[in-house]
Parts: sequence; structure tokens; C-alpha cells
Amino acid sequence: MRRLLIAAALTASLGMTQAARADEGMWQPSQLPKLAKTLKAEGLKLDPKTLTDLTAYPMGAVVSLGFCTGSFVSPQGLIVTNHHCGYGALQYNSTDKKNLIEDGFLAGTKAAELPGGPNLHIYVTESIRDVTGDIKAAIQPDMTPLDRYNAIDTAEKTLVKQCETSEDFRCDVYSFYGGYRYQLIKQREIKDVRLVYAPPESIGKYGGDVDNWMWPRHTGDFSYLRAYVAPDGRSAAYSKDNVPYMPKHWLKVNPKGLEAGDFAMVVGYPGRTNRYRLAEEVADAIDWRYPTLQKVYGDLLGIIEKAGKADPKVAVKYAGRVASINNGLKNFEGQLAGLTKAHAVEVKRAREAGLMQWLNAHPSAENRALTADIAKLRTLIAAQRANRERNLDTSLATRGLLGTAIQLVRLADERGKPDLEREQGLQKRDEPRIKGRLEQMARRMDPGVDRQMLVYGLQRYVKLPADQRMKALDAWLDGARDPAALEKKAAALYAGTSLTTTKGRLKWFGADAKQIAASDDAMIALARALMPELKQREQEEKAIGGQFQTLRPRYMEAMLAWNRAEGRPIYPDANSSLRVTFGTVRGYSPRDAVEYLPFTTAEGILQKDTGKKPFNAPKAELEAIRAKAYDGYASKRTGSLPVDFLTNVDTTGGNSGSPTLDANGELVGLLFDGNWESVSSDWLFNPKLTRSIHVDVRYMLWVMHHLDHADNLLKEMGVPARR
Amino acid sequence: MRRLLIAAALTASLGMTQAARADEGMWQPSQLPKLAKTLKAEGLKLDPKTLTDLTAYPMGAVVSLGFCTGSFVSPQGLIVTNHHCGYGALQYNSTDKKNLIEDGFLAGTKAAELPGGPNLHIYVTESIRDVTGDIKAAIQPDMTPLDRYNAIDTAEKTLVKQCETSEDFRCDVYSFYGGYRYQLIKQREIKDVRLVYAPPESIGKYGGDVDNWMWPRHTGDFSYLRAYVAPDGRSAAYSKDNVPYMPKHWLKVNPKGLEAGDFAMVVGYPGRTNRYRLAEEVADAIDWRYPTLQKVYGDLLGIIEKAGKADPKVAVKYAGRVASINNGLKNFEGQLAGLTKAHAVEVKRAREAGLMQWLNAHPSAENRALTADIAKLRTLIAAQRANRERNLDTSLATRGLLGTAIQLVRLADERGKPDLEREQGLQKRDEPRIKGRLEQMARRMDPGVDRQMLVYGLQRYVKLPADQRMKALDAWLDGARDPAALEKKAAALYAGTSLTTTKGRLKWFGADAKQIAASDDAMIALARALMPELKQREQEEKAIGGQFQTLRPRYMEAMLAWNRAEGRPIYPDANSSLRVTFGTVRGYSPRDAVEYLPFTTAEGILQKDTGKKPFNAPKAELEAIRAKAYDGYASKRTGSLPVDFLTNVDTTGGNSGSPTLDANGELVGLLFDGNWESVSSDWLFNPKLTRSIHVDVRYMLWVMHHLDHADNLLKEMGVPARR
Repeated sequence: MRRLLIAAALTASLGMTQAARADEGMWQPSQLPKLAKTLKAEGLKLDPKTLTDLTAYPMGAVVSLGFCTGSFVSPQGLIVTNHHCGYGALQYNSTDKKNLIEDGFLAGTKAAELPGGPNLHIYVTESIRDVTGDIKAAIQPDMTPLDRYNAIDTAEKTLVKQCETSEDFRCDVYSFYGGYRYQLIKQREIKDVRLVYAPPESIGKYGGDVDNWMWPRHTGDFSYLRAYVAPDGRSAAYSKDNVPYMPKHWLKVNPKGLEAGDFAMVVGYPGRTNRYRLAEEVADAIDWRYPTLQKVYGDLLGIIEKAGKADPKVAVKYAGRVASINNGLKNFEGQLAGLTKAHAVEVKRAREAGLMQWLNAHPSAENRALTADIAKLRTLIAAQRANRERNLDTSLATRGLLGTAIQLVRLADERGKPDLEREQGLQKRDEPRIKGRLEQMARRMDPGVDRQMLVYGLQRYVKLPADQRMKALDAWLDGARDPAALEKKAAALYAGTSLTTTKGRLKWFGADAKQIAASDDAMIALARALMPELKQREQEEKAIGGQFQTLRPRYMEAMLAWNRAEGRPIYPDANSSLRVTFGTVRGYSPRDAVEYLPFTTAEGILQKDTGKKPFNAPKAELEAIRAKAYDGYASKRTGSLPVDFLTNVDTTGGNSGSPTLDANGELVGLLFDGNWESVSSDWLFNPKLTRSIHVDVRYMLWVMHHLDHADNLLKEMGVPARR
Repeated sequence: MRRLLIAAALTASLGMTQAARADEGMWQPSQLPKLAKTLKAEGLKLDPKTLTDLTAYPMGAVVSLGFCTGSFVSPQGLIVTNHHCGYGALQYNSTDKKNLIEDGFLAGTKAAELPGGPNLHIYVTESIRDVTGDIKAAIQPDMTPLDRYNAIDTAEKTLVKQCETSEDFRCDVYSFYGGYRYQLIKQREIKDVRLVYAPPESIGKYGGDVDNWMWPRHTGDFSYLRAYVAPDGRSAAYSKDNVPYMPKHWLKVNPKGLEAGDFAMVVGYPGRTNRYRLAEEVADAIDWRYPTLQKVYGDLLGIIEKAGKADPKVAVKYAGRVASINNGLKNFEGQLAGLTKAHAVEVKRAREAGLMQWLNAHPSAENRALTADIAKLRTLIAAQRANRERNLDTSLATRGLLGTAIQLVRLADERGKPDLEREQGLQKRDEPRIKGRLEQMARRMDPGVDRQMLVYGLQRYVKLPADQRMKALDAWLDGARDPAALEKKAAALYAGTSLTTTKGRLKWFGADAKQIAASDDAMIALARALMPELKQREQEEKAIGGQFQTLRPRYMEAMLAWNRAEGRPIYPDANSSLRVTFGTVRGYSPRDAVEYLPFTTAEGILQKDTGKKPFNAPKAELEAIRAKAYDGYASKRTGSLPVDFLTNVDTTGGNSGSPTLDANGELVGLLFDGNWESVSSDWLFNPKLTRSIHVDVRYMLWVMHHLDHADNLLKEMGVPARR
């Protein structure tokens, strides 16, 4: 699924890339007028200029969930997104007796809608402002890398502070083209988001992990939420008194959907792409990062599964984590297969050779300087590579509850500083989110599993060379190296901490620096001991970051100049900001003599169904399909009910739940995945093979009407229930 | 691969079936004039009447290899067939130092051609005569089932004896429509068949077991043999003095091949189909036979693989057996998947219900009698079912060298009778073949593995209920039940026999009844002890066979009458006799949203190639494909070199190597396999999914010319070497 991956975020880059054709490209809304001709040629009927106005239709209707995208589909704050994006809300409301994931859920009235949990928020982009000038003004040419890093950091925090005029808004500075451009983005944050409707898992997650990333697909990956605000219209946490949020715009539904060859457009919040990473960074991903993460994820999965078998309650707690690990494992497999098949390293190398050749052929002083800076960038990448095992293994040994302890100790520290000097992520504005996570933890964490994971991380950590280890951690370990000895240390640590309970976690969240310094909680004490070295490493990392902040934009500048000279249109790498991508409904040929058609049909569910998870469609659905009881929702062209479809639009993790729009900007489906061949497109876009997967609006409406009787929602969206 | 399966042969049926459309049907040549209209409409340009003349073009050019089909392609007896049909000849000529399977082989001159081994024979059909009258004349209505069986047996042997006027010919009586019709088929048997050319395994078996039964396919499954006869033109075993056989007809090659939608025709020797088995027989195959054989084959494979790992020579000996077991395992899996997916039992039941309804609706005395006989047939099937475990497990415990001993004891017995009274398969005419097998055995059998397989069979045998076991075998076992005890018994048996050596086997082959009776060879002695009970079982089985010989034709008569009344064209089940099937080049949709195109291309080899077996195309081939050096053999329509293609013609095991002919009867490829969905078509033909797989003549010619420089053969076939 197009879920944002932690691993992907770890390798995040802020780059820019080139588009060989219109279907490639995650465009910033402001870029669209420049593409007016192509858009028109591809079939867009709206004026591209309307797409640049974030407060107009349709952009005003598209919202972020942080990890997914959604869109308003009624004047009363009804939001449609993917089933897998609303999964947490289903999980939050499930009990031993009532499994909403399995059964699905429909609120017949607004009063019956369920709270989505403290961490399910909605972000509505209100404005985007270029702040490149503000950032650049803060930098002096003779600064050390660390000073440079801190200067940019402070400038960003200052801009954010000025922007966040009330608790209704959340602002962030986004870096584009590797730090060549900066934008300040202001979003309305809605904190009371409720679960309205989701089909049963046997529709919403049909095909499960087996079909994940695969085509042909038959997943009804959609669900509905609703945004609520305080009666005065301000953002507020869940309260019975809250009222539905009234968005300025909501998407109109086109129940006729699309057909093969039609224009399609997706608006959403793609997370990260690495399309302008250097060849050696791709090689590193292939040779080390993905294989290593496969091993780590596999090991962690083993720990969870064993514990889950012994105790079903543990299995429930880690269900989301297991899904995410499996998704990651399949993703890594796809990345490796795709990058190898595409000869990605060679392609990147050839492209870089082209750039160097162009720079050499145009030997201005500036181009000579760029060539020198690119050489420095390569040196920096090689240097950073030397730390890769150290960083991974240390991180695995300081996660989980120990990670929480470290965060709490650090937070107490930061609270002593003026807000603008506090670390990003540990400022006043971040505290409610941190608290929310601490409260939620009990539902998703089991101290026994957490401890085993720590032991696993420590087993890796102790194998690091001495100069890559931390003195304080070694001191605490006191020579323990084998699993049994590490397990003993860990057992004492967990026995001596109150962080295993929500009460304990909230107590230390509320503690001040003095209380933390005096704490005899074993976990807090260990975190305290580790802090000086952690901070030192952080400073080192920041200094490296400062160097990257200088050198990456130089590489991008060179790339921009070259592409401009060659007349190639360009767009920045994805960075979780609002983007538009467009293309057409079309299949592809995955291999010699095989064609994948762009639409799956309801009859395909009959073919796939085994009666067993994950191919266990509801009986009522199977019967309806056998009877072809499509209630007028079938495609006029094919006579069958479309389920999912392919387009060649350019998306990635974070785009999940994005509305798929037709030429008039009306809703015709939801993006929910990419095909197997698209997994590696984060690094390299292949127009022949990269496809996005959408659930068809006709299937959504049919399931809602025929199977789940959600006619109240159809009515609210202005869709007549057919027959 | 479309290899004849032993398991399939075990369940062999002599049925008839109906054809819903022209692409279904393995037609007897004599039936073709009746189909003239359809043939013309589908695109045949030849007069269908020419296809009924077995001594005319093109039928006169098509020959049987016993387990495969081939065809003459030059006036000097050059034969083209599948690579997997010539595999035994490659194996026969391979040594530790020179692996012809791996390297391929090309004889630059006739003198360099290699003997194909004593068991590689070619059969050219010379005449077909209906002998139903002769057989029926031998039967009296009041005969017991056993007498009936023996009467038919004697009549058949008499006909065969009269027909085999010299050692040049081999005659056989074939039963059609379950014994409703009989034909005497006379074939010229050519005993000196030589290996002329085969591409390396990395072309001829490209994709190996992974791609076996699969589409898309990129296998160059072809090789060339040559038929030799004595200088006087008579059939003779291999001799340096032999000369190439001059066939009356040989196929003309059409180097342009076919394109999608073109007419295609296949002539060959399909082995067995079961299209008119009853629903309960299909259910038995699904519930018991295939799952049981999966287990047995898997266990035997385990024994061979373990021994092969310990000793590479053993691995070489059993390579053919392993390939055949793997082919069988995949076949069973496909059968089960296909039969389940097609709801075969339900479909058969519905068809039978249709028949019964029709019989009831037309209640003539004859139809009432047919209804009664069909009920008897069901009872007989149920009775036979009760013996299934006994028959399988006893057979597994009396195979291998012990089976050889049993055959030799029996042969000595039979030699004492007049030839016409000897058992079929043990007559004078069969002795050279038996001798050939005994001579060949050393290449394919290892006494250690053979012993372990016997122990495996005995382990199953001892678990049978007492009344299903054999007294003599139990006496020999002397209470041994657990593997160690059985192993001990077996070890003594193998230590006490000379049958483990070729010399010993040929000695006992030459022995007379007296010598056999006096033999103190442990294996011969055990076989002698088992003989009375084995014969008794044989008599029982013959009696059951006699009943089937009465009742199956009755069922078929009813089916024939019903189909005639409904105006449905009919053809008999495959029975290893010469058949013609026709249709068109076309792909299919294996599942929702997926289309399989009818041609694979050389570029697909680049996609598949991993450099590792079985996807390790020769480097020269990969380079040539990258350079698109197709030398004029590429398709004019697509510009690419076609490798394999699909048609909807109706084929089965035994059809391997069959020539694929165009509308003018010219060679455009070789049939070598069916798709995965066709595996279960032996029971039930599905026009939407059943496809045959052919290697394209253009690929064959290109490989021969560009990669293997077999231009001598191209010239001999009258194909200009292009550039």
C-alpha cells in the first residue's frame, strides 16, 4: 500500500527531478499554468489556473491526514479516504467483543459516529508562501556547517512561530529542490475526526498482503470520516459538543467514473521520492540498506509473531505494526527487484555523466565551481556511509520504551529554553502530539515485546566496533554481550521503570528538569546517562546536515541548469506537500506476451475468492455478483462493474486516499496503491511500467448502496441511490 | 510438457466425446471430409480429402516415436521433433566428459550422426482398417466377462499376427468409443534412428521445470533425428552399413510462419483423454488419485534426490526419471487446480443428468436397456474403486528389479505356449523390445535407489488390510513391518540376485522355463513364489475388464445417440492413434484484467534471463537479441522474432513434437506443450482457456542458422539461409 514508510523517510531526500513526459511529475499547484498546453492536450477541461488557488474548487476540498490524503465530499465535513488510512480508527474502536475491522462500521446518524482517536487529525492547506529569501538571509557564507544548520533551523522556527497565530493552525517550512527553494505552508489542523463508515475488511482489505502492490486488484480500499470543530468553529479535541466542520469546498461525485483512455488527475500529499539521489546512493540502497532492513524487519516480525501466538491480546496490539512491517518487507523486495531490473545504478551514472559532460562543455567559472561542489558532495556521501551501521544499530538499541525515556529526558531539558531555541519536534507546539502518543501507547505496545526488541537491538549494538559504541551504554551493559546476559540487563531495566504504564509515562511527561534529574526510574536514569553522547552525535549529524544543505542545492542547481538548457520540464521531489499529478487510464505490459488491462471487474472477485482470508468476500457480495445485481452502477461501455483501475499518474506513499478526479475535477475514485513495478519509482520513474492503482467510484457507490445500505451517505454526497 | 504420463496411462479410458466448437476435437483423419465446411471457414486451403490419405502429403510425413510425434522434413529421412522427445538420445550419447544435453549437438555430416539408442524407434502409419466386425464376431452374448475378455484378446492377437507380415511392420488393434469400434493400424517400424542436431539445453529446455506448462514461454523445444534402414530398404537395428530411409513424403517448411488469427493444424499421436469418464471417476481422481500420486511421486523424488546428492553418477542415471516425476507432479497440481476451478464433477454430473433425462424422455426398449446398463457401469466403477489402494500399493511393492524378475519369470512361462495364446506384451514380437529395455537399464537404474524404492513400496504394502495382501509376499516378509526390518529383507534380496547387472538380466532373459524353475537367484525365486497370486489377480482384473468392455460401450452408445439427436459433432477420446486437430493462433485471458498474447518474442528472453539455470540463454543468443540480429527471420507484422505461440487446437500428451501446419499443410512450428489451464482438459475441454503451445518455425530456423550454424540442415530442408 502507498503508506508512508519509516524506512523511506529515513532515506528522505529533498531533490528535484525531470519529467520526460506529462504522466511523470508530482507538480506543485503553482506550476500547473506552465503546463496548460499539455494538460489541455491530455484532456483537462478545467482552467489549470483554478488548480493553483488552494482555497478554490477542487484544491480546497483536499486534506492531509499526515500519513495519507483525504477529501471533503459534503458541506458537512464528510471525508472520503482509503480503508487502510481509516484502519487506525477502526482499530481504536474495536474491542474483544466487537471487531469493527472485520465487520465494518456504518453510523446511521451523526450521533452514532465514533471518535477516531487522539492522533487522527486532518490538515487543510490554507496558504503556501515562498520563504527562500527569509532563509537565505539568515545564512552567512563563512559559517561553519553546524552554524549554518542552526541558522536555517532558527529561521524556520521563527517563520513557523509567526505563522501559527492560533492553535487552529499548524505551519511548516518545506524545502524544495534540495534546499534551493523554501516554502512556508499553513494548514488548518482539525483534531476531532470521527469514523463514519467502512466496509468490512473482506471488501476494504480484500486480497490483503497477498495482493498488496499487485495488479490485478479487487480491493474496496475506501472509508469515510468526518471532521468536527468546536461550536465556535475553532479546532478542538474530541468533545460531544463539537459540530461538523463546514468546508468551503467539497468534491462533486461523478458516479459514471472513467473508461480506458480517459484523463485522470490525482491531488494529494506524496511523502518522499529520491529521484535525484546520486548513483552511489542508489547502490547503497541496493547493496546495503534494503537487504539490511529486510533482515531487521524479518527479525522483528519473528519476535512479534511468536509473542502474538502465545497471547492473542499482544497480537491485537501489534496488528498495525505487523501490517506495516509486512508492507515494508514487500516494499523492499519490490525496490530491489525494480532497481535491479531497471539497472538503476547504471541509468543514474549515465545521467550524471551527461551532467558532468554538459558542465565540462560549458566551462564558465560558475560551472567549474559546481563541478567542484559535486565532487565534495560525493566525498560527503562516502563519509556518511561509514556511519550507516553505527546509526542503524544504535537506533535499534535506543528505541521503544527506552526511546520514550530519551524523549522525555530531552523534553524536560528543552523546556528550560526559550521556545524558539528548542529542538524542532520538541517545541511547545509539539507537546500535545507527544502526549497523545504516550496515551495511545498502551493500545499498541506490550512491555514484553518491547523488551525483546530492545534485546535484539542491543545484540546488534554490542557487535559494533568499540569506537562506534557509546561509553554510557557500554557502562550500563557492564560487559553483557550474549543474549542471556542482555536479556538480564533488559529485565532489570523494565522492572525498574514506571514507563511501562500509561500513568508512569504521563507522570514523567509532566515532570520538570529537576524531577527528571532526581528520578530513580531505571529507564529515565539510563536515558539521562546516554544524553551527553546522544547530543554530541546529534551535533555531529547536524554539522553533516549543514554540509548537505550547502552541497545538495549545488548539485540541484547544476541539474536545473542542465535541464533548462535541454528544455526539459522539471518538478521537485515529493516532500509531503500538496501536489497534483495527471495522466490517463491505461494498462501496461508487465512482461513479454502479457497485457494488464486497466480495469478489474466484479466477476474477477468470483474468480479469486477462496472463501478464506484474504480472499473471503461477503456472501451477499458473491451472490450479488453472480446475479449481476449492479443497480445501474456497471460501466456503460463494458456492462460489468469496475472494481479497481490503473492510471499512469505519478504517486508515492502519502498519496493514499487521494481523490482521483476526472477532466472536470469531479471524484471518480481513490488512489490507494502503486503496482509492483512502481515500487522502485521513488528512485526512477519508468513510464512504460509505473502505474497507480485506484478504487473505482462505481464500486464504492455500489458497495455502499447494495451491500452496506449507506444510502444516508450517498444522499449527503448528492449521489442518487440507483436501481 | 506434453509427455505421455504413466499415471495418465494408468487411468486410460477409451471413450468418446462431443465437440461444442471446431477447436475442440482430436479427429480421426477419416472424419475430416465431414468437417469440410468448418475447415474451409476456419481457413484450410487444402482439400480435406487429401488429409484422409495416410500415404499422401502431408499425413505421410507424420510419424510416431511411441511417446511423441515427429515428421519427415527431407527426402533423406530427416525428422524434426521436440527437444524433450530427443532427450533420451542426447542422454544416451552423453558421457562424463561430453555432456550433449548441456552443449547441444550438430552432426556436420551424416557420418557424424549418433545412434539414438536401442529403444528409439520410429513408427510410420501405413494403413488403418476397421475391424469392428472381426472383433464382434468373436464374442457370444452368453460369455462370462473373463471369456469375453479373452475372446477379444485372442481376436486382437490374431488380427495383429496376420497383419505383421514382416519385421518391418508393427500392427495394433485400437479401441475407439470405449469398444464401440475397433481399428487395426499397421505401422512401419524403423529401428535405427540417429541423433542429428539439438540446440543446447539452455535453448531447448529454456525455462525448465519452472516454465513447464506455463505461458508466456520461450523454449526452443526442437531437435532433429534421422531414420536409417538396411541397404535393401528393410527395417534393421543400428548398423554402420544402414542407409537413410527415403520417405514418400516430407513436410515443406514455410519460413514465414503464422500470425495472430491464422489457421493452424496439428497432426500427431495424442495418448489418452478421459473426456467421457463419469462424474464419480472424476471425483475419484480429485479426491484420491491425484493427491495420492502427489504423495507417492514426492516420496520417490526424495529418495532419488538424496541418493543423487551423495553420488553424482546416480543423479545422471535418474535425470530423466526426475524430469518425468517433476512433470507429473506439476501435472497433478494442474489437474487438481483445473478440475476444481472448472467444477468438473458438477459439469459432468449435469451432462449425465442431461443424458438420463433424454433417455427417459425417449423410453424405447433399447433406451431402457441402456439406462439399466449405465446403472451397472456405476456399480462396477464403485466395485473397482474398492481395490484402488490395494492395486497401487501392491504395484509399488513389485516394481523395479523385482518387477523385472516377475516379467522374466512370466516370459519363460509364456514361451511355453503357442504365440497367439501368449499374453499381449509378452509375445514373440515383444521380445526384442524387452531385451532392449534390459540392456538400457544400466544407464537408468541404480540398485541402491531401486532397493530404497522397493522398501518404500513395501512400507505402504504392509499397511494394507490382511485380505488385500498377498500370502506369498507376506510369507517372504516373515513379519517384517518397520522400515529397518524391511530394509534388511530387501538388502538380502538384492545381495542374492544377479539381476543388478546387465549380464545377469540378459542371462535370465535367455533362460527357459526349466532354468527359471530351478533358479536359486533370490529375486527370481521371490517372483516365482508371487506368480500364482499375481496371475489370479490378473484373471480377476481381466474379468472386470470384460465387464467394462461390455458396459463402457453401452454408455458410449447412449452418449452417441443423444449427441446425434442433438446434432453435436463427435470424436473419439485419444488412444495413441493418428489424429488431426485444427484451430487458430490466439491468446486468452487467464484471469480478470489479464490478457495473454499469442506470441512471445526474443526480447522476452532478455527479460527472463537470470544467467542461471533454467534461465541461462547462451551469451551469443543474448547478444544477437540485443543487436536484433534476426537475419530476416523476424515477423513482418511485428518486426520482432517470434519464439513460441499459442493456438486453440486440442492436444494432449503424446502430441509432443507434432508438426504445426498452416492452411497449405506446410510446417510452421512444433507443438510441445499445453498451457496450465489445459492440463485438466484431458477430462473436460474449456474453449476459453485451453491452449496448445508451439515453438515458432522462425525461431527454429534462426537458432539453427545464426547460433548453431546448422545450415547443412536448412539446405537439406530446402530453406535458404537468410541474412
